[in-house]
Amino acid sequence: MENFRFAVDCNGGDFAPDEIVKGCILAAQELSCKIFLVGDKEKIEEVLTREGQLRNPLLEVVDAPQNVEFHEPPSTVLKRKNSSLFVGAKLVREGKAQGLISAGNTGAVLAVGKFVVGAEEEIERPAIAVALPNPKGKTVLIDVGANVDSKPKHLVQFAIIGHTYAQEILGIERPRVGLLSIGEEEGKGNELVKETYPLLKQTRLNFLGNAEGRDIYAGTFDVIVCDGFVGNVILKASESLGLAVVQMIKEEIKGSLLAKLGAFLLMPALNRFKKKADFAEYGGIPLLGAKKPVIITHGRANAKAIKNAVKVALEFLHQDFNRKLVENIRTLAPQEARV
Amino acid sequence: MENFRFAVDCNGGDFAPDEIVKGCILAAQELSCKIFLVGDKEKIEEVLTREGQLRNPLLEVVDAPQNVEFHEPPSTVLKRKNSSLFVGAKLVREGKAQGLISAGNTGAVLAVGKFVVGAEEEIERPAIAVALPNPKGKTVLIDVGANVDSKPKHLVQFAIIGHTYAQEILGIERPRVGLLSIGEEEGKGNELVKETYPLLKQTRLNFLGNAEGRDIYAGTFDVIVCDGFVGNVILKASESLGLAVVQMIKEEIKGSLLAKLGAFLLMPALNRFKKKADFAEYGGIPLLGAKKPVIITHGRANAKAIKNAVKVALEFLHQDFNRKLVENIRTLAPQEARV
Repeated sequence: MENFRFAVDCNGGDFAPDEIVKGCILAAQELSCKIFLVGDKEKIEEVLTREGQLRNPLLEVVDAPQNVEFHEPPSTVLKRKNSSLFVGAKLVREGKAQGLISAGNTGAVLAVGKFVVGAEEEIERPAIAVALPNPKGKTVLIDVGANVDSKPKHLVQFAIIGHTYAQEILGIERPRVGLLSIGEEEGKGNELVKETYPLLKQTRLNFLGNAEGRDIYAGTFDVIVCDGFVGNVILKASESLGLAVVQMIKEEIKGSLLAKLGAFLLMPALNRFKKKADFAEYGGIPLLGAKKPVIITHGRANAKAIKNAVKVALEFLHQDFNRKLVENIRTLAPQEARV
Repeated sequence: MENFRFAVDCNGGDFAPDEIVKGCILAAQELSCKIFLVGDKEKIEEVLTREGQLRNPLLEVVDAPQNVEFHEPPSTVLKRKNSSLFVGAKLVREGKAQGLISAGNTGAVLAVGKFVVGAEEEIERPAIAVALPNPKGKTVLIDVGANVDSKPKHLVQFAIIGHTYAQEILGIERPRVGLLSIGEEEGKGNELVKETYPLLKQTRLNFLGNAEGRDIYAGTFDVIVCDGFVGNVILKASESLGLAVVQMIKEEIKGSLLAKLGAFLLMPALNRFKKKADFAEYGGIPLLGAKKPVIITHGRANAKAIKNAVKVALEFLHQDFNRKLVENIRTLAPQEARV
């Protein structure tokens, strides 16, 4: 069997290139994937040499000295044709690689995902999904930032993309789909929601109606659909709430020896929880609807996170995700929600 | 000195009328306020009799047998003129009461707040603010649900309302104001944000630019402005995340005796944290920009929460909040953002 082949952006991310290159080595070793290490050749080879992997046939360096920094506008990448992201995306478009992984400028990854890798014909706007933890399992929130000012038909497409993700990747047989709003009843919400609701009713999805903010972590829906602006601020607010809670509890513990002992005894349970709750553990979030897997990892991704991101990309290929997605769009979407 | 006078909706809320009436008694006793107990007279008097407070001159029952149930459309209240909410709001409009408190149907409270109590002339759309906890203090998020599909000038008004709230109620001298978006730089965000940004720059607020979801609980801004749809889903998602985390950690603790002991030792610190973090402790959230304080409490409000809500209303009057708000709109808003 031929190896699966992925392009990994070795210039982007807080710990580039060291941790990224080490992640590529792990991916080659543990997942037997062929990895194109796209980035500053000299620096990449330095790490490979140090790690004794310069001659590993699964690791191929592709020189792309430029980068798109975090503070730069995402569209920069489309003009910077020597950047690791652009070169990596081109490898995917040309079929040399079968997926792209990057810890770099998120907007730039989205840009090459949409415009270089390209979207499936049936999908007007690819979207980002995250599987958020809840006490009973996971809830897919989609879109969390690939699109703003979405139209009703885009939200319907997001719903079908989310449905496919829940079914094929999370293994949920008949995902319960909700439309994020500020009240349960049909007719509650903003203009976008009010126009999307009747369209979603026409799909052949298991659409249960409006979901509210409180449903996101409650396990009452398997897929919750929203515009990318809304999804993005929810996702980032959730992360920051988690950090704030930990910091505020630490502050309360400070003065008390007994509380410190308590925290120490609790640590193993807290770590198990953290592992379940930290969706970054799973290795990054996918841009769904692109022709090939495009995986965005956290800017702080370390070697393990990069390897896990490759694993996520691999999973999409193993599951033949895109074929099923396209089929679902064709069979589940009402005419008005098609491209 | 004459007593301050408030109308309290005794029909609305999960624990009406018992806990609501008891809350009114506490408010009369501890805050020396005159309370109009608006609701089903018979039921209210039953509780007052049981509590030995039927002859308390600070407690006046106003009969209004009808209610707007949680599942009913908010606009119902405007037609149901015998409902406790409508009658209570009318008492405020007529000057008999100086503020309204309700644990009932939130949308209905907003409706009577806007249309019966009425908005200050300078405010086109009253908004709801919450002061969310962060490790360094509090951040005001506004609007969290009074308005959807807001226009740029409304967001500018929300910013000034939030600024006034932070200054007068939270005591922050020069509140740092941010516009919620999905990227820091000007130009990032949806259409609404892009159009609002230049207007906010023209105000005389301490406007620091875009805030991101991660800033909400980080203490990097004192006021964060958003449309009510976005604010509402963030607020409810945050509450549900808190509940989910507690439940998931409990699940992890279950099997381990040491972890249980740890949790027990930590409990006092956790309770101190909880008290700081639970904004419901403070007694409800205000609809700002209405002519008089309108305070929305949680549906599950108990007697103490109701008393605290009266305290919040009192604070707004003590601070002469509305006069300062109107003055701020006049002096801080650019022409385009005025009514």
